[in-house]
Amino acid sequence: MQPLSLPPRLLMGPGPINCYPQVLSAMSTQLVGQYDPTMTSYMNEVMDLYRQVFKTQNQQTFLIDGTSRAGIEAALVSSVEPGDKVLVPIFGRFGHLLAEIAERAGAQVHTIEAPWGEVFDPQQIEDAIKKVQPKLLAIVQGDTSTTMLQPLEELGEICRAHDVLFYTDATASIGGNPFETDKWKVDAVSVGLQKCLGGPSGSAPISMSERFVEVVRKRHHVEAGIRDAHHEDAGGERIRSNYFDLSMIMDYWGEERLNHHTEAATMLFGSRQCAIELLREGQDQVIARHKQAGDAMLSGIQAMGLQPFGNLKHKMSNVVGVNIPDNVDGEAIRHILLNTFNIEIGTSFGPLKGKVWRIGTMGYNARQDAVLHTLQSLETTLRRAGFALPTGAAVDAALDAYGSK
Amino acid sequence: MQPLSLPPRLLMGPGPINCYPQVLSAMSTQLVGQYDPTMTSYMNEVMDLYRQVFKTQNQQTFLIDGTSRAGIEAALVSSVEPGDKVLVPIFGRFGHLLAEIAERAGAQVHTIEAPWGEVFDPQQIEDAIKKVQPKLLAIVQGDTSTTMLQPLEELGEICRAHDVLFYTDATASIGGNPFETDKWKVDAVSVGLQKCLGGPSGSAPISMSERFVEVVRKRHHVEAGIRDAHHEDAGGERIRSNYFDLSMIMDYWGEERLNHHTEAATMLFGSRQCAIELLREGQDQVIARHKQAGDAMLSGIQAMGLQPFGNLKHKMSNVVGVNIPDNVDGEAIRHILLNTFNIEIGTSFGPLKGKVWRIGTMGYNARQDAVLHTLQSLETTLRRAGFALPTGAAVDAALDAYGSK
Repeated sequence: MQPLSLPPRLLMGPGPINCYPQVLSAMSTQLVGQYDPTMTSYMNEVMDLYRQVFKTQNQQTFLIDGTSRAGIEAALVSSVEPGDKVLVPIFGRFGHLLAEIAERAGAQVHTIEAPWGEVFDPQQIEDAIKKVQPKLLAIVQGDTSTTMLQPLEELGEICRAHDVLFYTDATASIGGNPFETDKWKVDAVSVGLQKCLGGPSGSAPISMSERFVEVVRKRHHVEAGIRDAHHEDAGGERIRSNYFDLSMIMDYWGEERLNHHTEAATMLFGSRQCAIELLREGQDQVIARHKQAGDAMLSGIQAMGLQPFGNLKHKMSNVVGVNIPDNVDGEAIRHILLNTFNIEIGTSFGPLKGKVWRIGTMGYNARQDAVLHTLQSLETTLRRAGFALPTGAAVDAALDAYGSK
Repeated sequence: MQPLSLPPRLLMGPGPINCYPQVLSAMSTQLVGQYDPTMTSYMNEVMDLYRQVFKTQNQQTFLIDGTSRAGIEAALVSSVEPGDKVLVPIFGRFGHLLAEIAERAGAQVHTIEAPWGEVFDPQQIEDAIKKVQPKLLAIVQGDTSTTMLQPLEELGEICRAHDVLFYTDATASIGGNPFETDKWKVDAVSVGLQKCLGGPSGSAPISMSERFVEVVRKRHHVEAGIRDAHHEDAGGERIRSNYFDLSMIMDYWGEERLNHHTEAATMLFGSRQCAIELLREGQDQVIARHKQAGDAMLSGIQAMGLQPFGNLKHKMSNVVGVNIPDNVDGEAIRHILLNTFNIEIGTSFGPLKGKVWRIGTMGYNARQDAVLHTLQSLETTLRRAGFALPTGAAVDAALDAYGSK
């Protein structure tokens, strides 16, 4: 029962990462009531801020109270009725997750797979759409498990042409890589805070097009305990989850303010600040800062004689996979980095487990000093473990990438 | 994009209420990684702290990342298979919610109803159990919509005798009224932080008996993206939700630390501090403090000539319903209290909407000064609205209840 006492880690893994200090400050704000006009006005502001983050005019843009997979499940369970066909192109762990969540929502799931480290050509996806004729396409933009970024620009057009709903999870990529909800004709997108947005896990911003909302609204229902005479069920099959019923969550965030959950106010304050940090610096500037930090990290890794994982043409700017060299104990290296240098880098899942480290440069930590400390510490640790490398080359390459003298 | 600026409200409604200052401080703590030994050791500590809060030896005691209804949904969707019979005794809005969540999980739901303002006699519940023969009994302990507290002491024994699982939601009551998981033979209980625990909404502590865990484990499954050769599905029907799959969440909080969600670390820090505030002051002392504040508020309300709602014998200690007098505009009074006095009291739902105010004395706000300010301000507001009352009687009655001179 002592006060919290945590070491000052520099979190350079695939997320969560260190929060912006301003986000932490916002999260110690005392509460007001959930229907207090000052609270509902902040809720409206948060909707507007995330419209800017998502680059959309979508009215239905708000927070799901849960971690990023809460946003995924809300989008899928609210749109998919049992038996509906869903197409999930899988290029890493989170594609498997989308498939699994859709299956549990009762969907008939069809998958196509790309090797881990690659992405799909839009043509492959269109071919599968033609074959499967799904109600919905669900795909992640950035799969942190492989560090790959799926190009989405053409998928919205393809989906419209075949009358398919287009959902994407952009948790790993948002804020560090371009994302254009309206321009790319994305029907629903959900994210988390704990990557390039620089906040803690626990809130899932989501945005839905009118087209998507229409599908959800067909299954609208009001809880018995708060139903008035003017509330009528829409008649569609009831959504399988109460917590993730987007038709009810829209009523809560909408003008009627119909009670659903009690908004997680502290997470809302944090989410709000994450959006403000992004928008104040400027979305293009933040994306450029991630690109620069990611490029510098990659240069350093390569200069050290390490091999990056996957097709670099499609790497997210904010994380790099590093093949663990033969004769190097990957976990031992991570252990020393953490305990001696207070720096965390990531391990991997599934087929990459034990084979690849993942090193992130995200949000608050997409900074020159964070990149330099990480490279120097990794070099020292590898050198002392007997791995032959050109001393100083990594940090020099990163400084060069930053254009430093 | 200005810094947050919220008025210093005194939140005397049915929750959320003002957080303990120590809880707010804890929530501005910088993060460490989710598998950092310092983080997992705090996760273990949180499990232990909530075992104490719930008065249980249950190993499976942890947090669900979401608001209190996330805990309800996790408990129900993980234990109930489609077609299973669930009995829900309803005595307010949240009984309806349990029924609705169980229905959406595919249960065949049977309900019995008590009038709003009353609770059930255990015999009524046993009779219904005999008739329905459900797999699970789901009932709330305190239904904030009516302020009533259902006695649970005998229900566990009844459930064991009929081989029924016993789940309860104690969100509104925990910390302000006695709760004994093991002694009462509760199989699963979930709560939220935003009432007597004095934290923000957004984390749902849950505890499960071995008997309950066994039912959940029969449906155990590991996600495709992280499955190893040694992982085998248990073979039972897969739980309908990934996010609320307690068998997977147990793997995440357990020794294997198998990745599920990314723990909402800031909410964990807040949840931890809520438990510490309760346990440091002493659970019996905190319950007594709530009883005293609730009694003082009730005395004041009655001395003012107002009628409390419902059967006072079964009122929760931490909230009182007040019948809005004829010729008094309940919403106008709430409006003045909020805007002139910065004090929030609550309205009601469903059949009580517009008829009853709800005034809470919870957590940090179960304090003498908060009770006195609320009564004085309500008196002033009613008096100036033309309601005849004995001036000063309310605050005097409350001071008497506190034994003040």
